[in-house]
Amino acid sequence: MATNGKATNILWHKSSVGKLHRQELLQQKGCVIWITGLSGSGKSTLACALCQALYSRGKLTYILDGDNVRHGLNRDLSFKAEDRAENIRRIGEVAKLFADAGIICIASVISPYRRDRDACRALLPEGDFIEVFMDVPLQICESRDPKGLYKLARAGKIKGFTGIDDPYEPPLNCELVLPQKGINYASPCEMAETVISFLEEKGFLQA
Amino acid sequence: MATNGKATNILWHKSSVGKLHRQELLQQKGCVIWITGLSGSGKSTLACALCQALYSRGKLTYILDGDNVRHGLNRDLSFKAEDRAENIRRIGEVAKLFADAGIICIASVISPYRRDRDACRALLPEGDFIEVFMDVPLQICESRDPKGLYKLARAGKIKGFTGIDDPYEPPLNCELVLPQKGINYASPCEMAETVISFLEEKGFLQA
Repeated sequence: MATNGKATNILWHKSSVGKLHRQELLQQKGCVIWITGLSGSGKSTLACALCQALYSRGKLTYILDGDNVRHGLNRDLSFKAEDRAENIRRIGEVAKLFADAGIICIASVISPYRRDRDACRALLPEGDFIEVFMDVPLQICESRDPKGLYKLARAGKIKGFTGIDDPYEPPLNCELVLPQKGINYASPCEMAETVISFLEEKGFLQA
Repeated sequence: MATNGKATNILWHKSSVGKLHRQELLQQKGCVIWITGLSGSGKSTLACALCQALYSRGKLTYILDGDNVRHGLNRDLSFKAEDRAENIRRIGEVAKLFADAGIICIASVISPYRRDRDACRALLPEGDFIEVFMDVPLQICESRDPKGLYKLARAGKIKGFTGIDDPYEPPLNCELVLPQKGINYASPCEMAETVISFLEEKGFLQA
């Protein structure tokens, strides 16, 4: 019997089919690829390219997209500070479940605060949280402005917009920084291959 | 438009890997098996038996257990009325994501209120929410009392306990009632086979 957060009287149910069995079935290891970066930095594009490239190798992935999750699980959350933290916490918890299911879970979320990302990392077993930083300068993201959000933020119509009037804290020790140093431009496919090389090297693409 | 290796002028299709592709990979269809019933009615036991039997057929499942989820995603929720509803809502939303990932998601939750279960059903495409009612009389559940919770509830140490001082609303139109009519006793394996026959008949065990 455990007391856990606000809930009491909870027992832990262990199933006889575990993560290892699921990984065996899928011939891969469950993990979380956490793509962080400014709006317009190419997170979703990389997520899709990665999903596609892994699918062509017969690997099962699932994308948790910050925007999409807000239409379902996190529809009750606003953009105020504590709700943003809760948004990230829930995505982290769901990503953890997907990794436990044996899936390569790709989370594509701005997640501007180091503290929140580190809390998600702490949920996963060592090595299973792969933080990918889309290191694209604000001026480039703003010039792309694919959703027209920077324009609204500059006009004061969106408050607390990351990069404009709210900080983005770049990772200090993430697993991958894209585009790689010395490369000014890399296509989404090329960046996806960089991530896949990392996964291969770490043994995630086999059971 | 993207550059891909030596090829140029390639249109990038967003989220080109969809549910159908994942189902093709897994050779199954994603769905939610929602097991509802009193504490001690055998929900978790059925969930594990089902998971095991499907694994032996090479199918990928994942169990969302009401208690387990309270250790992570729903650790901020108590057992008061609105938190119970939110607990079910979030499990429904996560189950939906798992089904979308192509997985046979088994939710094992008391989920006493019809309204909450129906709200989860409404999240899924028609036919993809399979409600399984563990129709076990209170007196049997209470005599089992595997977690000692009925004893605590009777002693007034747990308030609002389903079946004791909080109602359980049986489903009116669920897909399966277990144990089946006329059968006084069925083993977890036999009940799992009943569910699997249903899945087979509805085409969930192939892409």
